[in-house]
Amino acid sequence: MKVHGQPTRTVWLEADGATVGIIDQTRLPHAFATLRLRTLEEVAHAIRSMQVRGAPLIGATAAYGVCQALRVEASDEALARACAVLLATRPTAVNLRWALEEMRRALQPLPPGERVAAAYARAAALCDEDVAINRGIGTQGLRLLEAAWERKGRKGRVNVLTHCNAGWLATVDWGTALAPVYLAHEAGLPVHVWVDETRPRNQGASLTAWELGQHGVPHTVIADNVGGHLMQHGEVDLCIVGTDRTTARGDVANKIGTYLKALAAKDNGVPFYVALPSPTIDWTLEDGVRDIPIEQRDGTELTDISGRLPSGEVVTVRVTPEGSPVANYGFDVTPARLVTALITERGVCPASPEGLLSLFPERRPARSTGT
Amino acid sequence: MKVHGQPTRTVWLEADGATVGIIDQTRLPHAFATLRLRTLEEVAHAIRSMQVRGAPLIGATAAYGVCQALRVEASDEALARACAVLLATRPTAVNLRWALEEMRRALQPLPPGERVAAAYARAAALCDEDVAINRGIGTQGLRLLEAAWERKGRKGRVNVLTHCNAGWLATVDWGTALAPVYLAHEAGLPVHVWVDETRPRNQGASLTAWELGQHGVPHTVIADNVGGHLMQHGEVDLCIVGTDRTTARGDVANKIGTYLKALAAKDNGVPFYVALPSPTIDWTLEDGVRDIPIEQRDGTELTDISGRLPSGEVVTVRVTPEGSPVANYGFDVTPARLVTALITERGVCPASPEGLLSLFPERRPARSTGT
Repeated sequence: MKVHGQPTRTVWLEADGATVGIIDQTRLPHAFATLRLRTLEEVAHAIRSMQVRGAPLIGATAAYGVCQALRVEASDEALARACAVLLATRPTAVNLRWALEEMRRALQPLPPGERVAAAYARAAALCDEDVAINRGIGTQGLRLLEAAWERKGRKGRVNVLTHCNAGWLATVDWGTALAPVYLAHEAGLPVHVWVDETRPRNQGASLTAWELGQHGVPHTVIADNVGGHLMQHGEVDLCIVGTDRTTARGDVANKIGTYLKALAAKDNGVPFYVALPSPTIDWTLEDGVRDIPIEQRDGTELTDISGRLPSGEVVTVRVTPEGSPVANYGFDVTPARLVTALITERGVCPASPEGLLSLFPERRPARSTGT
Repeated sequence: MKVHGQPTRTVWLEADGATVGIIDQTRLPHAFATLRLRTLEEVAHAIRSMQVRGAPLIGATAAYGVCQALRVEASDEALARACAVLLATRPTAVNLRWALEEMRRALQPLPPGERVAAAYARAAALCDEDVAINRGIGTQGLRLLEAAWERKGRKGRVNVLTHCNAGWLATVDWGTALAPVYLAHEAGLPVHVWVDETRPRNQGASLTAWELGQHGVPHTVIADNVGGHLMQHGEVDLCIVGTDRTTARGDVANKIGTYLKALAAKDNGVPFYVALPSPTIDWTLEDGVRDIPIEQRDGTELTDISGRLPSGEVVTVRVTPEGSPVANYGFDVTPARLVTALITERGVCPASPEGLLSLFPERRPARSTGT
């Protein structure tokens, strides 16, 4: 998507064919700064410090981290060490593990002398595959936006509410929940996005608002508390959110607060869609509320807020009283009964076991042939 | 309630018998500072700048503003002017208008020479009446907390979730939603409060957390997004919130985001109570979602956040990108169907026309005697 009018990805290979370029997302929205990563350690630091974040982007960046390590030494031991170092940066990220296994599977069989070139080729392919998946989600979701526009008699604007950042900054390009929005915007559909601030890390206010603004998509930032009121008054035509993990029956774990918006959507007859690349489906789980572990994060994310002083300096301030305990849950689970449909790169389906299996028939349990 | 271990009200008469003392709530939670108000202008400024806030407290403080004006001049014109100046400080506050009308009704018939003493007496009485109403709400609500404690087999703790600040800082003392909590705490019930941060003005994180902490009530600050997750996992035994306006059928307007918590409570079988002094009932309205106008406030409340630097200095920082529009709705309406019961100073009743009329039979429309 565009930054300062220029098409930009979140991770890229520099012109030297070796250095990896990223956007330093910790400095958004107050500054757009890029970083050049030349070593395994620099890549690991970028992931650990959340200069890159978002499951698909972490995986893609880690793949380039393997490249950087192999440039120094391409032995089996070096490959194994690079994967271990990178995996430890964000231990719970499913995509990270998947991307590193992809790299190891591609490189291990090769003689060391061929590994560097193959690593760059595989990393680039992983990035392109992410872009293709997201564009697929976008194409599928675009139809839902067009249908909403038709339902309104093609009048006014299509109001989409989203929570957190499931935009291109979380992926290599396009995003998941926002891919349909970008495609709609490019197709001339008058789409407008209500951007949930997304406390406590403010990914909506800082990242989603920034990327929509850079690309020229009309949007309005709102407190997380506002969505229900807007839905009561007909100001939301549909919700689209991302997900970190989807169970086999369509329960979705996503940023904390997603469940509250799904309840409001249900109460007001507003369609609630979840956009997901199929690798985030966890076919081993059914009941998400019961079985998906919810990460409790450092309380300073809630007590301390970063922002820009009038001087331009970015500082962190404390907002809560000294001595008041805080609790900081990272995610919640929205039961499938509140999800209108899932948007995957293969199509749109009901949030149900049958719905998911209709798109992913290879996951259907083999029947015993006992007659 | 207590501050630094000392019983404290939010507004009081100083020892000189003339000056009004208040807590400067704009400096909470980072500093506890009191102010001495000696003139009408100082009182008006304190209300306008939200050094005092909360409907009942605004009314009580304004009553003392009339006293300050009459000390300078006790003519009819001076009384009218004082009321006009004070009413203009927060034009939409119902309690403010009510308190000023009370003062005028008490003082207008008196000869000017008797007005100053009468004004101080009436202002003090208004404060005491507010305290009595809130204590009444607390006594009624305490029974609900005791019942929750019994339902848990008197094990663990009673977890109350509240939104915004309907505590003693919003009133003269005790608060509305928090009055039952303070009474329960004093009665030895192991009560714990989940305090919603309450974006965008952070009244939960800054005021509710502070006043509970000062009084020694166990509490935990959470992002507004968290309550649904906690309810899904049995971590909330009941919700109690305040309200700015209640319709005759029991719809309640309260701080934006209240509706989302009520939906989550309903979805998880958690009782959702609304505490209200009866003057906040608007007997002229039925459908709150349709008929209660919702204030849109300055967007800087969302874009800019105040907090304390490590140096102790309190500064305001910008969190959203330059150029991203924001929308800032102050309140939302929770339909009566989501409210388990209303807690008033007269008792607890269903959120329904019949429920309210059972407590306030004087409001029952006179029947035509047409036989």
